Amino acid sequence: MPEPRVEADSVSRTLALVGDRWTLLILREAFFGVRRFGRLRRNLGIAPNVLSSRLTQLVDTGLLSRVQYRSEPDFYEYRLTEAGRELFPIIVTLMCWGDRHMAGPGGPPLVLRHNDCGRPADAQLTCGHCGGVLTARNVTPEPSPANRERQVER
Amino acid sequence: MPEPRVEADSVSRTLALVGDRWTLLILREAFFGVRRFGRLRRNLGIAPNVLSSRLTQLVDTGLLSRVQYRSEPDFYEYRLTEAGRELFPIIVTLMCWGDRHMAGPGGPPLVLRHNDCGRPADAQLTCGHCGGVLTARNVTPEPSPANRERQVER
Repeated sequence: MPEPRVEADSVSRTLALVGDRWTLLILREAFFGVRRFGRLRRNLGIAPNVLSSRLTQLVDTGLLSRVQYRSEPDFYEYRLTEAGRELFPIIVTLMCWGDRHMAGPGGPPLVLRHNDCGRPADAQLTCGHCGGVLTARNVTPEPSPANRERQVER
Repeated sequence: MPEPRVEADSVSRTLALVGDRWTLLILREAFFGVRRFGRLRRNLGIAPNVLSSRLTQLVDTGLLSRVQYRSEPDFYEYRLTEAGRELFPIIVTLMCWGDRHMAGPGGPPLVLRHNDCGRPADAQLTCGHCGGVLTARNVTPEPSPANRERQVER
């Protein structure tokens, strides 16, 4: 009998929070500076009840915070929390793949400018130790030290 | 009247292909070397009809290829295509976020070893020009040159 697979990894846990197309599109808008219900609804063409339920979920899971920006009448906007802001690389890698494989004849609609150097960011996933580009071919998944007694089952 | 928003970007196009929790989990397995129906089914605890339909979709969209590995009786496995392999950064960024925000008491279940330097990969999204780490705070989305006459609407 093969060993049981290493405990469900962080991909499925993350997807349990953001693994929904609308949720990811709302987060994309948040990264582009869109914070208000009406603008989200128009930009995404999303039904108000669906938008409302996804926003509530994103607030409940701590990825967005609901902040009052005007009173009498009260108006609220949705801002990325620190944990939400750290989803940025997920949105960017989704965008890069689409730019490469699915851009229409006009090319990618958006570019990301890296403010620090002023150039288009041309995002790459790199090794934090040596700086080399990471690909499916040069990376090997292993049980982490805490899980080393168990096998990665293929 | 505000300008219409820049044409739906590459995030939504990519999500139209992979923006489904099962699809992303099947791709995760593929990156971990899992290629066969039975093993996918067991690892994911997915209903066979759902697995079957997601695999067909992944083959139809060119992200997996179906390859015969034994004959009489014929058996097939599913391998990442080149376009599928390039989804790797998406899976890794999902995993990194989960490791950081949702790992249980035992810590992250898996680490990715970077074969080229031999260290844990500690993946980062960096600028292809200057090598700096990209974050939501140091990147600005802009219409690409081809779309420059239109505005990014917030």
